[in-house]
Amino acid sequence: MTTANVEPLFVGLDVGGSSMKAGVVDDTGRPLSAVSLPTEAHRGQDFGLERMCETIRAAVRQAGVSMEQISAVGVATPGLMDIPGGLILDPMNLKPWRNVPVRRHVAETFGLPTAFQNDANAAAYGEFWAGAGRGARSMVLFTLGTGVGGGIIVAGGEGGYIVEGEHSHGAEVGHIKIEMTNPRECECGRFGCLEAYASATAVVKRTQEALADDGGRSALHGLMRSGKELTSREVFTASDAGDELAGRIVEETALYLAIGAMNLMHVIDPDLIVFGGGMIAAGDGFLNRIRAHVRRLAFVVPAERTRIVYAQLGADAGFIGAAACGRRLVKQ
Amino acid sequence: MTTANVEPLFVGLDVGGSSMKAGVVDDTGRPLSAVSLPTEAHRGQDFGLERMCETIRAAVRQAGVSMEQISAVGVATPGLMDIPGGLILDPMNLKPWRNVPVRRHVAETFGLPTAFQNDANAAAYGEFWAGAGRGARSMVLFTLGTGVGGGIIVAGGEGGYIVEGEHSHGAEVGHIKIEMTNPRECECGRFGCLEAYASATAVVKRTQEALADDGGRSALHGLMRSGKELTSREVFTASDAGDELAGRIVEETALYLAIGAMNLMHVIDPDLIVFGGGMIAAGDGFLNRIRAHVRRLAFVVPAERTRIVYAQLGADAGFIGAAACGRRLVKQ
Repeated sequence: MTTANVEPLFVGLDVGGSSMKAGVVDDTGRPLSAVSLPTEAHRGQDFGLERMCETIRAAVRQAGVSMEQISAVGVATPGLMDIPGGLILDPMNLKPWRNVPVRRHVAETFGLPTAFQNDANAAAYGEFWAGAGRGARSMVLFTLGTGVGGGIIVAGGEGGYIVEGEHSHGAEVGHIKIEMTNPRECECGRFGCLEAYASATAVVKRTQEALADDGGRSALHGLMRSGKELTSREVFTASDAGDELAGRIVEETALYLAIGAMNLMHVIDPDLIVFGGGMIAAGDGFLNRIRAHVRRLAFVVPAERTRIVYAQLGADAGFIGAAACGRRLVKQ
Repeated sequence: MTTANVEPLFVGLDVGGSSMKAGVVDDTGRPLSAVSLPTEAHRGQDFGLERMCETIRAAVRQAGVSMEQISAVGVATPGLMDIPGGLILDPMNLKPWRNVPVRRHVAETFGLPTAFQNDANAAAYGEFWAGAGRGARSMVLFTLGTGVGGGIIVAGGEGGYIVEGEHSHGAEVGHIKIEMTNPRECECGRFGCLEAYASATAVVKRTQEALADDGGRSALHGLMRSGKELTSREVFTASDAGDELAGRIVEETALYLAIGAMNLMHVIDPDLIVFGGGMIAAGDGFLNRIRAHVRRLAFVVPAERTRIVYAQLGADAGFIGAAACGRRLVKQ
């Protein structure tokens, strides 16, 4: 038997294209461990399912607890998926997996209540439970990375209702169309999506286009000549250093994100909008630019009252949120 | 005492800028009466509150029942409002009303549980309960009239959760920004809102602009010369009769509405999208054009599975939905 432990514990697992991360989380959302293992999707889905269980076991070991102390498990994965069915269907980032019965496999392996959730929804629910959204009734998360993802929690139901959608396509907030005239092509193949304007990838692309036109004035030309790869981080750094071209790109990015935020404020009208993902390394100056555009763009009441903040849990949001989804199974 | 009646009955009241409409509704959403009285907002809010009670009493009388048979009341009004507080704050269409305690007044007058809701949300909830959305888990309504309004119901909570928003600004689906380049000005003062492209008012405005440019070819020039006022109905009729300019306007309108529908499908991913309001007189041909654009624009899974239909309750949706909100107070 294990040592006595009055607080229930949960395990969350966040499966990504290159690695998966698991952690034991206590009843207040505090992680007691965090373990990453490579996903190695190319080795096939049976290997993948076993790797998931291995990562969960490693997280439990690292936390210094035993599997018997765990009350529930939550697993978050990228799409295409069937959330109620507990299946990954045809995942873009996990080739060649197909119709993978994730929830059933994990539940049967550990004999524990197991929740299954989209990774972006899980990250949103993690922030809602234990991060930037703690205490809020409703929240919209935008994650800014190579794409723009997100999650939506509304006040309906016990502990908030995750807007999964009826076809597991809820909260694809990067794929709202914000431009009809000469719209940019998105990675998804559509045109005019928010993601095509405001992801880190889009920031780089827009910067490259602007550099081709600026007659060599921007300091970023030096970086390009040095053969270093241009990333959104360099653009934000150059903007902070006063580079005019970079400053324009950053300001436009803030505007695009404010349009995204405003659109969600006019649809969901949440307590707060949270921005997460790698791009928030840009810092508070960037957040303040977004806020200023939102105040100008949105209806007066939500513009004044909706808090707009950065995420707090970083790359742990996914497994913490997955654990929170597991926790809901046994706490309701 | 009244005659025996096993089924509970509810009254819904839908307050509009020019008239208000009330009806008794049974437990299945069927209206037993429908009474309209002029709002006459200019006579002040005390008069308005009394007029609300008068309309409710008239609806009860017309249904041939007595007030004692009514289990609950629901009142829907236009904004700006505080839904949880039961207050109309500063309504655009009900000048000079201000901070009107609608719910308290109605509840105290009749001594009945009284719900308060935004009129567009109520119309959505009416369709969800007893109209086009009957049996659905979630639904987004777009109402196409002088503006573009709407309501959103998600599956969270008993009987669906109405996305009111935390600041009573949820489901302002006409005010998502769909254009950044040279955006049209909206009645709300913002730029690029869906409403500025796809309301009946916008259809007329876009037609007038096109007529100024088409060298007198469109049949609609004759209508304009006759001094008759151009309405969206004439544009749809001319399109059906083969007028090229009108056909182009109608096709573009279908595209704009499909962009609105797609954006909500990528945010809410509901069971179904419902279009209501005066403009649906355009008929099934117009609906099919919208559907065709959505299939082309949206993610494959929601594009294939989301039903896109017309509303079924017409101008009764508001009071039926208001009654449904009252019903929730006593049925949960």
